[in-house]
Amino acid sequence: MFNRVVKAIPNLFTIGNLLCGLLSITFNMSGFIEIASVLIFLSAVFDLLDGRIARSLKVNSALGVQLDSLADIVSFGVAPALLFHSIAAPSILTSLAFILFPIMGALRLARFNVKPTIGYFKGLPIPAAGLPLAGMGFFFYSNAWVTLLLAILMVSPIRVKKL
Amino acid sequence: MFNRVVKAIPNLFTIGNLLCGLLSITFNMSGFIEIASVLIFLSAVFDLLDGRIARSLKVNSALGVQLDSLADIVSFGVAPALLFHSIAAPSILTSLAFILFPIMGALRLARFNVKPTIGYFKGLPIPAAGLPLAGMGFFFYSNAWVTLLLAILMVSPIRVKKL
Repeated sequence: MFNRVVKAIPNLFTIGNLLCGLLSITFNMSGFIEIASVLIFLSAVFDLLDGRIARSLKVNSALGVQLDSLADIVSFGVAPALLFHSIAAPSILTSLAFILFPIMGALRLARFNVKPTIGYFKGLPIPAAGLPLAGMGFFFYSNAWVTLLLAILMVSPIRVKKL
Repeated sequence: MFNRVVKAIPNLFTIGNLLCGLLSITFNMSGFIEIASVLIFLSAVFDLLDGRIARSLKVNSALGVQLDSLADIVSFGVAPALLFHSIAAPSILTSLAFILFPIMGALRLARFNVKPTIGYFKGLPIPAAGLPLAGMGFFFYSNAWVTLLLAILMVSPIRVKKL
């Protein structure tokens, strides 16, 4: 029983990550762009903590890995893309960037789960792409080229050292 | 080369599923509730086709499974919950149902990917929970108890026969 509770702790942080992503979308829908942006950063705090807590409690689990990706696609793929979509002036380029960002994010997450890399990441991790977009959103600044670049970097073969 | 193209076909359908989920959210944000609802049903068409095409082309892949879950959490977890959120009168019960629906959906998807069941599903599959919510949304009908029930059924031990 005690073991099960301890095992669930990191997953509660992952659910916190998902919840902040969800709330970011609802605040964005209501026009509270700054709050929507801050909530994505709060997702990142939960995302950083869940892995560290799992490692320090030695309760890493396959379920945790799956749950983490599902939270990440919402908080760092869909929510930042919607923030960009709310701010950017409509154009074909903007629509393309908005669509490609979460799709490339999903491909990045799926690829990592199938072939995990040790010590480094192949392609920009999705939080490292979502956070700049959220940060730009906070200042009501949008740039379709930067968004496209971040999307492409996620599926690029570049190596990024793990924090 | 030809093999790689054939292998990618089911994943294009999965990306179609994700794209419809994304567009459902943007139409919902712009107040086009019926279109947002129809797009979730279109996601389900893509979702049904990707698995069938993968099986008939014999190109089932681990990447496809991961990508499928990431698309499903957006199209059948987040998008229907946001539709419900847009229609329902604000209350603590409504907020609870809105939050729990995608969280239970993520738990359901994560559990299935870790322990796949053969011939049957354990817990209501996420499209079978998201589609009733999308259908209710089409008629501007919301019911927090039904939403909560669908959320709980996803993580319940009930067995559902595979289609």
